[in-house]
This record gives sequence, structure tokens and C-alpha cells, in this order.
Amino acid sequence: MTADPDCLFCRIAAGEGEAAIVLDEPHAVAFLDFRPLFPGHTLLIPREHHETLPDLPAEQLAEYFATAQRLATAVQQAMDATGTFVAINNVVSQSVPHLHTHIAPRNRKDGLRGFFWPRTKYEGDEMEQTAERIRAALRKMSTADG
Amino acid sequence: MTADPDCLFCRIAAGEGEAAIVLDEPHAVAFLDFRPLFPGHTLLIPREHHETLPDLPAEQLAEYFATAQRLATAVQQAMDATGTFVAINNVVSQSVPHLHTHIAPRNRKDGLRGFFWPRTKYEGDEMEQTAERIRAALRKMSTADG
Repeated sequence: MTADPDCLFCRIAAGEGEAAIVLDEPHAVAFLDFRPLFPGHTLLIPREHHETLPDLPAEQLAEYFATAQRLATAVQQAMDATGTFVAINNVVSQSVPHLHTHIAPRNRKDGLRGFFWPRTKYEGDEMEQTAERIRAALRKMSTADG
Repeated sequence: MTADPDCLFCRIAAGEGEAAIVLDEPHAVAFLDFRPLFPGHTLLIPREHHETLPDLPAEQLAEYFATAQRLATAVQQAMDATGTFVAINNVVSQSVPHLHTHIAPRNRKDGLRGFFWPRTKYEGDEMEQTAERIRAALRKMSTADG
């Protein structure tokens, strides 16, 4: 699917939505999130409509993430930041079902120290059992591919 | 740089660190975060030592993110989750200075609804000025490349 007429981000990619565009390329578009985590918080979308990271076609990965790299550097430099936060929500917490990579500037003591907390802990052999579940899912996928 | 003897993740990639490895490939290794956001929270690292996303060589992007796609699908399936959170902290909140992509299972009402909040707002022409700063940084980078 190349465009979904009901998709807000497809409309922005087509130049029909209101957005502060920072990058406009044949394969991707980037624009400011209008409710930023911090000013400069940018969303990078593939021009084609793909819902989640696993849906992005293999031949688009290199170009899409090379652009994410450039944007991470540009956002950090433009906002005089120390680092960046690059994140993709797939399905849950994904407000628009068109793949978008958040690229937000970060600084030490910017209030997001607790971002990745609270964390939990594994008990007993739960960690090894969990690892085995993921290994099994990967094996099943590679069998399905082959 | 291919390996840093002082780097915890280079040691794990070399099979010398203690980790619940879920994927071990020539270019990348993935293992469980021992303090997970939720059980199944996995870290994907390039085998070579590169500090941040912008540091990953262009020729490694497709393979690295194809593996991230596979892991996102596998973690979601293995943990019977509804979605995933895929994130990279560059410099700030980056506990180990070796690029690692967090891949955590997500479910609705899992307690992380407020994850991306509080957000801020742009006032007046701050949004357009911010977009222009990022566009200028991108232009400067492409001039430097060319």
C-alpha cells in the first residue's frame, strides 16, 4: 500500500496536512511533533503507508534509518542538546497507525531520568525461560521464512 | 573500532559476559535486559563497537534493523503482547556507550500510558523557528558531506 486516504501522516506526506516539515525526500518525510517531549521533537515517517516497524519493506530499511541517523545528529545540533531519544511505538501507544520514529533532543537532568523506570526483576529461572520463549519465536519465524 | 576491551556489551558479544542471549549472528547479538521494563525486554547490539545510532556504519543499517524487525515480531509473539516499544538512547540515559536498541513488549493498560508525557507546547512562532533550526542543521550536514 502506498497511501491511505484516511491516514493523517499520508496526508502530511502528500503536502495536504498542516505540519512543520523539516525534511522532505522521495522515500521519507520528517516534521515536528506538535506536542513535543521537548522542542525539536521530530517524527520521521516513510512516505509509503506502512503501519509498524516490522511492516517496513526490507529494501527501505537502509535509507529510512540513514535518514534517522542524519535527523538524530541534526536535532541534537540544532537544539544544542547532549543526546537524543529515538523511539518507535508499534501498535500500543501508537497514536497514528503509520510508522513514525520519534527523535527527541535530550539533556542530562532534563526531567526524563525516570523515563525507563520503574523496571522489574526476573525471579528464579524466569529470565532463562523468557529467553527461550523468544529464541523459540525466532526459530519458528526462520522456519516459516525458509 | 571492532571491539573495546572495557565495554560490557563487547564482552557479551564475545561470549565473555553473563547474559541470556536470544540471538547470536555475525553482525549482531541480542540478549535480555536484566532489569526489564517488562519481561522479554531485549537489547539488540551490533557486534562491532559503535557508540550511538549515528555512529553505525551505513553498510550495517539494513542488516541491523532487519534484525530489529525480526526481534520486535518475536518478542511480541513470545510474550503474547499487543505491541512493542523500540527505543535507542543516544548519550543521555545511555547506560552503556555501545549502541543498543531496546525492544520491549507492550500491552494496553500496562502502566506506561503516561510514558511520553508530560509533553510541552510551542508558543507563537516557536514551532516554525524550531523547524528552521533543524532544517539549517540538515543543510549544513549535506554541505559538509558534499
